[in-house]
Amino acid sequence: MFWSVYLSGEVHTDWRDQIQAGAEAAGLDVTFAAPVTHHEASDDCGVAILGAESNKFWHDHKGAQVNAIRTRTLIEDADIVVVRFGEKYKQWNAAFDAGYAAALGKPIIIMHQDEHAHALKEVDAAALAVAKTPEQVVQILTYVIEGKLAGYTD
Amino acid sequence: MFWSVYLSGEVHTDWRDQIQAGAEAAGLDVTFAAPVTHHEASDDCGVAILGAESNKFWHDHKGAQVNAIRTRTLIEDADIVVVRFGEKYKQWNAAFDAGYAAALGKPIIIMHQDEHAHALKEVDAAALAVAKTPEQVVQILTYVIEGKLAGYTD
Amino acid sequence: MFWSVYLSGEVHTDWRDQIQAGAEAAGLDVTFAAPVTHHEASDDCGVAILGAESNKFWHDHKGAQVNAIRTRTLIEDADIVVVRFGEKYKQWNAAFDAGYAAALGKPIIIMHQDEHAHALKEVDAAALAVAKTPEQVVQILTYVIEGKLAGYTD
Amino acid sequence: MFWSVYLSGEVHTDWRDQIQAGAEAAGLDVTFAAPVTHHEASDDCGVAILGAESNKFWHDHKGAQVNAIRTRTLIEDADIVVVRFGEKYKQWNAAFDAGYAAALGKPIIIMHQDEHAHALKEVDAAALAVAKTPEQVVQILTYVIEGKLAGYTD
Amino acid sequence: MFWSVYLSGEVHTDWRDQIQAGAEAAGLDVTFAAPVTHHEASDDCGVAILGAESNKFWHDHKGAQVNAIRTRTLIEDADIVVVRFGEKYKQWNAAFDAGYAAALGKPIIIMHQDEHAHALKEVDAAALAVAKTPEQVVQILTYVIEGKLAGYTD
Amino acid sequence: MFWSVYLSGEVHTDWRDQIQAGAEAAGLDVTFAAPVTHHEASDDCGVAILGAESNKFWHDHKGAQVNAIRTRTLIEDADIVVVRFGEKYKQWNAAFDAGYAAALGKPIIIMHQDEHAHALKEVDAAALAVAKTPEQVVQILTYVIEGKLAGYTD
Amino acid sequence: MFWSVYLSGEVHTDWRDQIQAGAEAAGLDVTFAAPVTHHEASDDCGVAILGAESNKFWHDHKGAQVNAIRTRTLIEDADIVVVRFGEKYKQWNAAFDAGYAAALGKPIIIMHQDEHAHALKEVDAAALAVAKTPEQVVQILTYVIEGKLAGYTD
Amino acid sequence: MFWSVYLSGEVHTDWRDQIQAGAEAAGLDVTFAAPVTHHEASDDCGVAILGAESNKFWHDHKGAQVNAIRTRTLIEDADIVVVRFGEKYKQWNAAFDAGYAAALGKPIIIMHQDEHAHALKEVDAAALAVAKTPEQVVQILTYVIEGKLAGYTD
Repeated sequence: MFWSVYLSGEVHTDWRDQIQAGAEAAGLDVTFAAPVTHHEASDDCGVAILGAESNKFWHDHKGAQVNAIRTRTLIEDADIVVVRFGEKYKQWNAAFDAGYAAALGKPIIIMHQDEHAHALKEVDAAALAVAKTPEQVVQILTYVIEGKLAGYTD
Repeated sequence: MFWSVYLSGEVHTDWRDQIQAGAEAAGLDVTFAAPVTHHEASDDCGVAILGAESNKFWHDHKGAQVNAIRTRTLIEDADIVVVRFGEKYKQWNAAFDAGYAAALGKPIIIMHQDEHAHALKEVDAAALAVAKTPEQVVQILTYVIEGKLAGYTD
Repeated sequence: MFWSVYLSGEVHTDWRDQIQAGAEAAGLDVTFAAPVTHHEASDDCGVAILGAESNKFWHDHKGAQVNAIRTRTLIEDADIVVVRFGEKYKQWNAAFDAGYAAALGKPIIIMHQDEHAHALKEVDAAALAVAKTPEQVVQILTYVIEGKLAGYTD
Repeated sequence: MFWSVYLSGEVHTDWRDQIQAGAEAAGLDVTFAAPVTHHEASDDCGVAILGAESNKFWHDHKGAQVNAIRTRTLIEDADIVVVRFGEKYKQWNAAFDAGYAAALGKPIIIMHQDEHAHALKEVDAAALAVAKTPEQVVQILTYVIEGKLAGYTD
Repeated sequence: MFWSVYLSGEVHTDWRDQIQAGAEAAGLDVTFAAPVTHHEASDDCGVAILGAESNKFWHDHKGAQVNAIRTRTLIEDADIVVVRFGEKYKQWNAAFDAGYAAALGKPIIIMHQDEHAHALKEVDAAALAVAKTPEQVVQILTYVIEGKLAGYTD
Repeated sequence: MFWSVYLSGEVHTDWRDQIQAGAEAAGLDVTFAAPVTHHEASDDCGVAILGAESNKFWHDHKGAQVNAIRTRTLIEDADIVVVRFGEKYKQWNAAFDAGYAAALGKPIIIMHQDEHAHALKEVDAAALAVAKTPEQVVQILTYVIEGKLAGYTD
Repeated sequence: MFWSVYLSGEVHTDWRDQIQAGAEAAGLDVTFAAPVTHHEASDDCGVAILGAESNKFWHDHKGAQVNAIRTRTLIEDADIVVVRFGEKYKQWNAAFDAGYAAALGKPIIIMHQDEHAHALKEVDAAALAVAKTPEQVVQILTYVIEGKLAGYTD
Repeated sequence: MFWSVYLSGEVHTDWRDQIQAGAEAAGLDVTFAAPVTHHEASDDCGVAILGAESNKFWHDHKGAQVNAIRTRTLIEDADIVVVRFGEKYKQWNAAFDAGYAAALGKPIIIMHQDEHAHALKEVDAAALAVAKTPEQVVQILTYVIEGKLAGYTD
């Protein structure tokens, strides 16, 4: 089986690159997908393609709907959904994606630091793993996909 | 048809009471459901019933899972899901519920003030209505359930 | 079993009233649902409740989405979906409802006059009955729900 | 991920060719599917293969059902459904396809000119993008599949 | 829980009446549904309501589709589906109903005499009980619904 | 909302009676369902109704399938599934029910003593609560259904 | 898209070979699947592998269930299901497969001669095409998959 | 079609190797999947990757949830699920997997010795085959996938 993993959430650090590099180094049969992480493109895609809006609400709405074509399709196609919450911002779209994945029955891995543990308890409660670092996610994927756990040999 | 409406999100103001009072005044065939809104009970239900945890993470986890028995069942039973985002706090569980309802194909009404419009654009993009006040929600329910719109008579 | 029937489509004649009167006269265990048939209310409900839009497209969009809360819920709740195409107008929402009901696996009865038979052939092909008059629909419901067919006695 | 896109609707202009050419020029990982666009073959396929019908209604019915084997299968297989409404004709099958795709939860892109905006408001309300030109559709696909938006570079 | 049981198949003997009388005598919380068992009405309902057909195939087709509005709805609504195969006739609609119920995951009880056991082996293999008499079906329903088995007392 | 709760598992103690008495004392809007708990009837129902089998395997098989008509229907109808593992016996049907409920997405409460915690870790991992006593289950139901938690008042 | 077609029903003539040869000659992107058509193997597979049964009913039962592993999986995997009814035998498994495919929403092509039209009317009513010859099925597949209809050129 | 088979249950003997070797010798188009069978790695994966737990229950819980990412995904991806019950231990996770697969409608093959037949009767009742040896499973797969049964030639 070839696994597909969707990486949702925070777009300001290189955590996706770290996971992908780690998975490649581990030789995993996996493909990664993600939302468009170019912040301005993501905000403007609706009006840039379909025409300007004078009202900021509809500017945002058109962009968010075009992005939804990508994100909902990729989440539904994923075998595993990873959602990272960063230290800043509201990140409601990350929590939305987690809820969306949960209702579809997708195995979910949530990433966040301890400081957000209480605020994320309902989201964590829907996850099968709560991690802090990209390295942990790579280790989970290595275990789940290849059955290998460092330090445990036959 | 008897409609069921789930009221998710912010628990610090009386918006649920206002909607229910308005719906009752309008004589709508509707029942409302909601998460447990007693903040301390919601936080402690897991350990209070199932035994204390020394680790705060598991304290939270047990509570969040017990709450999930209620919230997921009621969202799945709902015909319409209303999610209100307040002015404060992360409210990731509200966004999680919105995503959960969206993946189930539930009609969603999102409530928030203008200041959060940009941060909530992906959530709004999954909604069939974006409202600001409980009165607007009552008007939507009156229109949707009874087909009545103030000022429009036969 | 108590049957629910959704009556979609044309809003300019009294065909719904005729079907309901006929079903009542026949004493059928059935409830009927329909979109809001007040044309102006249906067009304006979005902006009347949620605020005016200077752009006509968004005026229409807000209204159509509020109506969708009602129509999609009632179609999903229906045991049988009847869709009538009148003699005039594009009526794309009627065809949309028929497609929506078809994908949900609902039994569909289409009503139209002969002149539209060719243009509606794909829609008719998804139906279990193609009728011309409200009286025929009442007879179908009487047969389907009560098992009674005029002229056929034990 | 390899994306599949279904192009439903109007069959009198070369909009499908334009989208496919544009997608090929952009090097997208995408395959396109469509109904049979040969008008006479589409009308006659039922009787040509399965035997003539003296009654025009059943002539149409047999053809529409044979076409449905193709169209329903391809819509269900699609990741994205594009539906174009032309300037002429009733095009009820296009609206039917849009409703069918909507009930399946497919991301939908609707194409039409401004003159049909009001009549198509319920259909547009179920879409994630409303476009006017094939070029816009290619830009959406390029953004959704490749994450690239003209003018927005890293 | 109030149970609904669909009684499909053979229409020439009074097996349905026997099951209903037995269930009533046992005081079970159950409602029974069935296809229209008036043979001529069932054959002619399509043309009687929707207009005559010169071609016998379409005469049958219209009737079979009108009957399908009833039968598919009631099978989908049923908690248990009972299908009786009589001694005579092809009874392909009975086997069709069994397959339909099986794909929906409904618990199935098949009724037939020993002589048909080999020919019905694929159908029996999808059933949770294979009975010969109405009395056995009543006993199964009494056990399943009330938990009572004659001769086994606390 | 009226809640239905299925009580699966161990049949040798009166834990079901305790839960039902507690729920009644708490005035909860809930109905309980369970497998047939009469051990001999449960073993023999198949052959007692449908005829004796000389081979013990088929004796068991007929009984297990008749019981499945009841248990699968009631689990699918349940809002919450409680599974209790006793101190003795293999109880594979209890674990089977837990897996069945998990795949259906039902909220699950598992009951067992500490000694079985390690052996049940995969089952517990699919649950939203792990309890030891009937009283805890009553408290969970009281909290989930009524929102009341002893010691937490407004 | 690569199409998969399941060929259910009659096993005494070479209709499957004719369809496959025709599809190959037409160069269609299609794979065919079928039940095991070796009559004795199909009857005996259960006992030959899993041990003899003295009771003929269980001999048949074991075989029918082993065959079901193959047939249900392949029907669920199919894009199109073709079911041929021959001139002889009860063929209840063919009708069962048609019902099974219908409930899954698969496009169905039924093959039979005129003499069985009335007895198969409920089965035909669930089909999108009713054919008599393997050549017609090949023509349908050619049209549906390739969009080509003999005699209709651009 | 390329078949995927999930091998659940007992991890102390080499039955999986025997089945895979047999399938390879038979040249079957099949891939096998399984839980992680390294006992210690399976127990410790949660804490080894995500951090130690002082409480054994949460140690087990974290591990069981990480394993669930693998096992649930692979069961859902499988065409056939084989579950072997060994002679020792509780093996509740095996029965859980069988119930999970049953609710998903997967064809199930159960493997166990005669001594467990009565205790496993509810699990067997959900299976399409009950086998004792790896060789029997290989024969079933050979028959189901290739249609070949030893001793039955054309």
